[in-house]
Amino acid sequence: MENFIHDIPTKVYFGKGQISHLDEALRQFGTRVLMTYGGGSIKKTGLYDEIMKILNDGGFTVFELSGIDPNPRVESVEEGVKICRENKVDVVLAVGGGSTLDCSKAICSGYYYEGDDLWYMIKNVKGRKKSLPLVDILTISATGSDFDAGGVISNMKTNEKLGASFTYPSVSILDPTYTFTVSRYQTAAGAADIMSHIMEGYFSVTPDSELSDGLAETILKTVIKNAPIALAEPENYSARANLMHAESIACSGIPEFGKKYTGWPCHAMEHQLSAFYDITHGVGLAILTPRWMRHILKKDPSCQWRFVRFARNVWGLEGYDEAELAQKGIDALEKFFTDCGIPMTLTDLGIGTEHFEAMAAQANGGGRLSGAFVPLTEEDVVEIYKACL
Amino acid sequence: MENFIHDIPTKVYFGKGQISHLDEALRQFGTRVLMTYGGGSIKKTGLYDEIMKILNDGGFTVFELSGIDPNPRVESVEEGVKICRENKVDVVLAVGGGSTLDCSKAICSGYYYEGDDLWYMIKNVKGRKKSLPLVDILTISATGSDFDAGGVISNMKTNEKLGASFTYPSVSILDPTYTFTVSRYQTAAGAADIMSHIMEGYFSVTPDSELSDGLAETILKTVIKNAPIALAEPENYSARANLMHAESIACSGIPEFGKKYTGWPCHAMEHQLSAFYDITHGVGLAILTPRWMRHILKKDPSCQWRFVRFARNVWGLEGYDEAELAQKGIDALEKFFTDCGIPMTLTDLGIGTEHFEAMAAQANGGGRLSGAFVPLTEEDVVEIYKACL
Repeated sequence: MENFIHDIPTKVYFGKGQISHLDEALRQFGTRVLMTYGGGSIKKTGLYDEIMKILNDGGFTVFELSGIDPNPRVESVEEGVKICRENKVDVVLAVGGGSTLDCSKAICSGYYYEGDDLWYMIKNVKGRKKSLPLVDILTISATGSDFDAGGVISNMKTNEKLGASFTYPSVSILDPTYTFTVSRYQTAAGAADIMSHIMEGYFSVTPDSELSDGLAETILKTVIKNAPIALAEPENYSARANLMHAESIACSGIPEFGKKYTGWPCHAMEHQLSAFYDITHGVGLAILTPRWMRHILKKDPSCQWRFVRFARNVWGLEGYDEAELAQKGIDALEKFFTDCGIPMTLTDLGIGTEHFEAMAAQANGGGRLSGAFVPLTEEDVVEIYKACL
Repeated sequence: MENFIHDIPTKVYFGKGQISHLDEALRQFGTRVLMTYGGGSIKKTGLYDEIMKILNDGGFTVFELSGIDPNPRVESVEEGVKICRENKVDVVLAVGGGSTLDCSKAICSGYYYEGDDLWYMIKNVKGRKKSLPLVDILTISATGSDFDAGGVISNMKTNEKLGASFTYPSVSILDPTYTFTVSRYQTAAGAADIMSHIMEGYFSVTPDSELSDGLAETILKTVIKNAPIALAEPENYSARANLMHAESIACSGIPEFGKKYTGWPCHAMEHQLSAFYDITHGVGLAILTPRWMRHILKKDPSCQWRFVRFARNVWGLEGYDEAELAQKGIDALEKFFTDCGIPMTLTDLGIGTEHFEAMAAQANGGGRLSGAFVPLTEEDVVEIYKACL
């Protein structure tokens, strides 16, 4: 087992009606609030009004930044920082999914950044920095941004999509009922995102981090069981709650404690798809992951042991032919994504081969994929992209 | 799934050599340190000298409280508070197992307690209070006191052993190599303690908290696999590391998130054994747990579904006769404890029936066992004690 450091300061209120803690969560930091959100679905669902009532009743002064994109842009970060500085905001309240949370984290860190070029900050931030406090209310189970420090910001001018570690939320309010209205497509994409966060770390060379492996398998099985229920019955509380519980832990680092870090190769490859084509992150991951698995299993059959465990412990597959079992586990994953209604080829998304070399070069920038479970070259990445057509 | 709040501020450094972070862990709070420890085994192993070198090199001023008992006494708490107050201590450094950590937590809380009667404080503390900061270095895998706020203190004058929530450690240093010298008996008792922390919450009426149940089963399987290895090869790093990882999470509350609280009936019953007879906590739990299981399964057969899951998912047992499976899971647990070398009857420990009624009354003080998975009366508790003879 490898050494690790556990250091997650976020307080999580999980369950129905936990918005009752919103006032106290904000007030500990002050009364001047920047509320951030996306395209306005929270106005349709009534959540916006519910929050504004609490904030008005509590005497908070509220500023707003709306229209944060699904792949949040550096321009939104710049705007948020400007609002916070001009209005001496005490705390940011992010209401939405991973995109809104990621953008808000960058705003919180950017507030104290002394330079003018926030894209430079995002590209160069190392470790946690002094930040404005962040409180969030999650409305989709996907990224786990409510229980980690990371954020991913896009610069469409340069076709770059970069992840960085900004700050942990101080308080996250996770009420599964807020995800009842999430569409089928986004529910499925969110499930794929959660599963990817696990699989990126699960496929590692470390053989003996047993608690992490068992937790990873538990999270995968939780999603495999509950995503189809949530797709069929969007207001099934138990299914939505299990998905939300899973998403929160999946990206926290906890399922990788004690394991050798892999560099998260599918995320590296997917971020290029989103950066060049602005697609839904979870869909990109669902398309890439089975192809990546088949590629590395063929490239280095000595990694088969891990796929056999995946087939047995996650998918409940049985049999003595290990090579066959390994393949069947990957097939089961691909079928699961297909059954969830995810378009499973790049062709389906209108993406062709035109940028594969450029994307591969960016995915492996600085040789970051050389530390993956099975090390990848740019040529490998191009082959994996081609297998997704 | 039930609502829950996750709020654990402890920073954990896990792995070989993490003592390199000790100086910075303490220095953030000041340079006047109370170092607490037990019977002096850390002097035999060399850990005491290693720590003192770091503290001396760092220019810390160190006070010491040694001789903390396996069931820590209120007198040690009183002495520690006195030393801290007289010497304006900035931070407490606990080096040892759960007993030393529990006592140190009570000292940290007691420091700011305004009354004179610390036993009164321990009996009446509610929630976390202002406390001196606590840093710990763990030397045995058992209680999980390194990653929770609780502590259990004994008053041998009144035959009382009480648990309370004091404060979370600010920093816990978990180096599995420090457990290489733990005796067979204490390694086995620690394993039983870890497993009990899981089973107390696992046997709950909530059917759908899937991540918590899967994590609980993972921790149990981790202990079942690794405790025998650690007993056979005390310096097997992987086995010791897996046990330490398991113990840290087991008592954190995380494996019970989303589940209805049970009141931890075996702990309630065991605390009376320790209070009246000063026995090893984990041994008392190992003796009680299988008898408690058989008692509640007989009392209320409708709880059988949970034991069937336990048999299948934890012990890997197969079969279609669910009543038989349920019994076999309990038998497997009892055999495991026996194989670990734990004395499995109260008679083995020289305990007779003389205090069973008094202990049962205290175990169920205030009707606390009425909320258990299967509610227990004092009569039930006496029967369970008798079954342990």
